[in-house]
Amino acid sequence: MEETPSIKYEIIGYIRTPFTEKKGTPIQPFYSSADGLIDIFPQYGKGLEDLEGFSHLILLYHFNQVRGFQLKVIPFLDNKERGIFATRAPLRPNPIGISIVELISTDLKANILKIRGVDVLDSTPLIDIKPYIPLFDKLDAKTGWISETKRESQESIVSNGRF
Amino acid sequence: MEETPSIKYEIIGYIRTPFTEKKGTPIQPFYSSADGLIDIFPQYGKGLEDLEGFSHLILLYHFNQVRGFQLKVIPFLDNKERGIFATRAPLRPNPIGISIVELISTDLKANILKIRGVDVLDSTPLIDIKPYIPLFDKLDAKTGWISETKRESQESIVSNGRF
Repeated sequence: MEETPSIKYEIIGYIRTPFTEKKGTPIQPFYSSADGLIDIFPQYGKGLEDLEGFSHLILLYHFNQVRGFQLKVIPFLDNKERGIFATRAPLRPNPIGISIVELISTDLKANILKIRGVDVLDSTPLIDIKPYIPLFDKLDAKTGWISETKRESQESIVSNGRF
Repeated sequence: MEETPSIKYEIIGYIRTPFTEKKGTPIQPFYSSADGLIDIFPQYGKGLEDLEGFSHLILLYHFNQVRGFQLKVIPFLDNKERGIFATRAPLRPNPIGISIVELISTDLKANILKIRGVDVLDSTPLIDIKPYIPLFDKLDAKTGWISETKRESQESIVSNGRF
């Protein structure tokens, strides 16, 4: 049996969004045109330099409203139970979320980034920001159970508040 | 001043790769054709169900060999200092890595996934697996400082061991 020590991360700032309850929050940036802010703690501000030329950011954040986890969930895009690692649902063993948002502008004096396409609750704790790089991140891929479902709905897909 | 409690995550398994030292390890899956395994602890195995139809996985993992962080680094793709959040370098405030790898096969009885395009050291602790979904993740984007540099090299770009 291998050792499994826990990993400890620090919050580096908060994501400010118009969404104050799960119900009605878009489930992905693809379904969101909402603006938001990334509010970084001053001690990490210098790390935001050189972001201004990137059009998209990968945000890693903590689903701080989630309690516990499930190994099988019915995802919003489906009506059948799926393994949690085959979904983006928040009820994960480690409740880390990932969203690719559009970077609108940077205010490095205030340690604030203006972003678009937010899909998280207001005051979600931020863990990391990475630049989206098409060379590494833009891939053709097959999508398993999602191809069986109606995924490219014209209407916005939002949370029903289940999780 | 807002409260900044730490966040605690559990290791869910390990990534097995042919790379035992930083020097020579590919810096991104794009530069790697190496095979590897994801070895999930049995208690999380059920969460791997339904992954088999996906061709690519997003792995989140802990850079466990990194000590401390820098807010400005010279990334492997450049010779100038850049803000850490505008790079994929490991010396981040929270040393979380992200790699999009190809899923070759699943062995749900053994809780093992065979993957291709690994770019991490052997026995890297895994935190999360998410399916890569082109609808959400395949984007056209501008890439800031990276467009100034020679990024689409024919030869493989590997770590020189700096971090």
